[in-house]
Amino acid sequence: MSGVQQPVPSQGGAAVGPRPRQAVIDMVAYSPPTSGRAGNLRLDFNENTVGIPSWLLEKIRARLDAEHLAVYPEYEQIRPKLARHFGVHENELVLTNGTDEAIQLLVNTYVNAGDRVIVLRPSYAMYRFYAQLAGAQLVEIPYHATDLSFPMEELLQALAWQTRLVLLANPNNPTGTTIPLDQLRALLTAAPQTAILVDEAYYEFSGITALPLIYEFPNLFVSRTFSKAYGLASLRLGCLFSRSSNTAWLRKAQSPYSVNGFAVLAAEVLLEEPGYVEEYARQVKSAREKLCQALTERGIRFFPSQANFVLIQVGDRTRLFCEAMRRRGVLVRDRSYELPGCVRVTVGTPDQVERFIAALDEVWS
Amino acid sequence: MSGVQQPVPSQGGAAVGPRPRQAVIDMVAYSPPTSGRAGNLRLDFNENTVGIPSWLLEKIRARLDAEHLAVYPEYEQIRPKLARHFGVHENELVLTNGTDEAIQLLVNTYVNAGDRVIVLRPSYAMYRFYAQLAGAQLVEIPYHATDLSFPMEELLQALAWQTRLVLLANPNNPTGTTIPLDQLRALLTAAPQTAILVDEAYYEFSGITALPLIYEFPNLFVSRTFSKAYGLASLRLGCLFSRSSNTAWLRKAQSPYSVNGFAVLAAEVLLEEPGYVEEYARQVKSAREKLCQALTERGIRFFPSQANFVLIQVGDRTRLFCEAMRRRGVLVRDRSYELPGCVRVTVGTPDQVERFIAALDEVWS
Repeated sequence: MSGVQQPVPSQGGAAVGPRPRQAVIDMVAYSPPTSGRAGNLRLDFNENTVGIPSWLLEKIRARLDAEHLAVYPEYEQIRPKLARHFGVHENELVLTNGTDEAIQLLVNTYVNAGDRVIVLRPSYAMYRFYAQLAGAQLVEIPYHATDLSFPMEELLQALAWQTRLVLLANPNNPTGTTIPLDQLRALLTAAPQTAILVDEAYYEFSGITALPLIYEFPNLFVSRTFSKAYGLASLRLGCLFSRSSNTAWLRKAQSPYSVNGFAVLAAEVLLEEPGYVEEYARQVKSAREKLCQALTERGIRFFPSQANFVLIQVGDRTRLFCEAMRRRGVLVRDRSYELPGCVRVTVGTPDQVERFIAALDEVWS
Repeated sequence: MSGVQQPVPSQGGAAVGPRPRQAVIDMVAYSPPTSGRAGNLRLDFNENTVGIPSWLLEKIRARLDAEHLAVYPEYEQIRPKLARHFGVHENELVLTNGTDEAIQLLVNTYVNAGDRVIVLRPSYAMYRFYAQLAGAQLVEIPYHATDLSFPMEELLQALAWQTRLVLLANPNNPTGTTIPLDQLRALLTAAPQTAILVDEAYYEFSGITALPLIYEFPNLFVSRTFSKAYGLASLRLGCLFSRSSNTAWLRKAQSPYSVNGFAVLAAEVLLEEPGYVEEYARQVKSAREKLCQALTERGIRFFPSQANFVLIQVGDRTRLFCEAMRRRGVLVRDRSYELPGCVRVTVGTPDQVERFIAALDEVWS
């Protein structure tokens, strides 16, 4: 998601209210563009582009009742089911209000103002957001400019200074590139006192996971989300995994009702029939191949991706390109502010890739 | 809600992972008891005890679709509707993931570690929770022991020291007592650089609101919730109000998708027909009178309340009392850890009060 600048409140005028913390004044504003997306081909947020199957929706609808809406969320039923689904013990899992709360929870638990936090650039904007909000000393390490590969050497060097938290995405957004597991092992070994998050929001499309490594490395945290392959971005449900000695601290720092009860209800239904997620991921991987082939045939440059999106180099008119695509009902994401000439395109089904290519051909000519 | 102690993670053993912040180690754990509540008469969490009307539930059900679940939440449609409903400008309102996020947002925006924060005691547990999480210097001022009235003089004295944030509930939970508006004005005037939250979670049952005062006092913040009278505790929807110069800072410090899209959908439906909230509040007020009369007739002491709950003095066996009521299918809340001899009982409809009294009579004899 983007780091678009938004207007900062005026400091002038008479009574302006209490002064915010300096960290809030200093932080980079983050305001992703999200309105009026429904009805378009949504290739701009890496969501599930078709949504859950209608028969699962019917099951969710049937379980909805007024009493369930009126009571505070209960997590006792869903936790063992999630644990089984992800292959961990119940005590190794924390439910979160999307991956965003997982990030915030890690920062709140481990990072004091002034502490050193490392993030990569470009990566998911909320890593920087929460680190800055906490007043952390933020260190940003750039991905390699030529092939957007993981800057392993630079990160290892940066870890020579005492660091409280490293926030990584694997595969990374928006680059689509992955971190090999042996490199992750080397990082976890190099900084045993540093909490290291591996955000696996796009795991279902890459098949690479560090989750079993939580039994090997007590400084490892892994997050997963229901917002991408699972088709529940609206409901804000994520899971954060680590050793039980760590999750006990995370839960102590967590608000008791951050995850809503409807997300819990929906997840309970979906976990009974999770096959649709695999099927969707299979379609995306096939569509990704199709998209890359079409781009290659047209001589359009792109970065190979292990996620459900591809970075395409459209040249210096990214804004015009995105607008022209939008006029054709296709939403894509301008990432040129951090990757010159680049637009990020979510990969949906093979049919949706065809629709994207048709619009691309009109715009390109 | 209660501040029950929960076990703290062991520090022993071999590899225990990164050390959490001292503030997290030091904070009082908060773990409200919530499981297996459905099917009982729920008089323990001050929720709406009957839920939204079934015809409104049908409308919500009808609008649910797979695309809506798959996309990130959009707030552009609901914000002007909420603003109209509460009688403020759209820029004077921040949507929050329950009142809990409103409290966290105020702390994140205004409170650095070491800054002074004032809360009352007893009051809603999350005020202390977020202040401690931030590493604030927490000052707790006790309510007057005899009649649980608001300690105005003590609070004014405490405000003589530079304070970043004051967190108040009106009516207060669990006391049920209110803060007169002229006293609120005096506080807002006395500490113009201090952010003062008036949490009006129970406003619908008291009819007293500080909301119009945001135009007079740039240091005032008011919160409302859909978790109590509105019957949506499951969905975690709250609103935080202040001058637009303040809300702009709050929004800058807020995660962009903290409120889930289903809460937005449900609120859109309910705001079209909000009459049920007034009708429910009317029933609760009538039932509250009935309850207090029944307690008086039985010579059982209680504290008069402006909220949808009443503190009842059941003597030194509060735990046994709560268990005996639970065996009769009636859930009430033991508050004796902060108010000796006291149990908090949510007021529902007049019929539910009758059911409560019948169970009480069995237990009492």
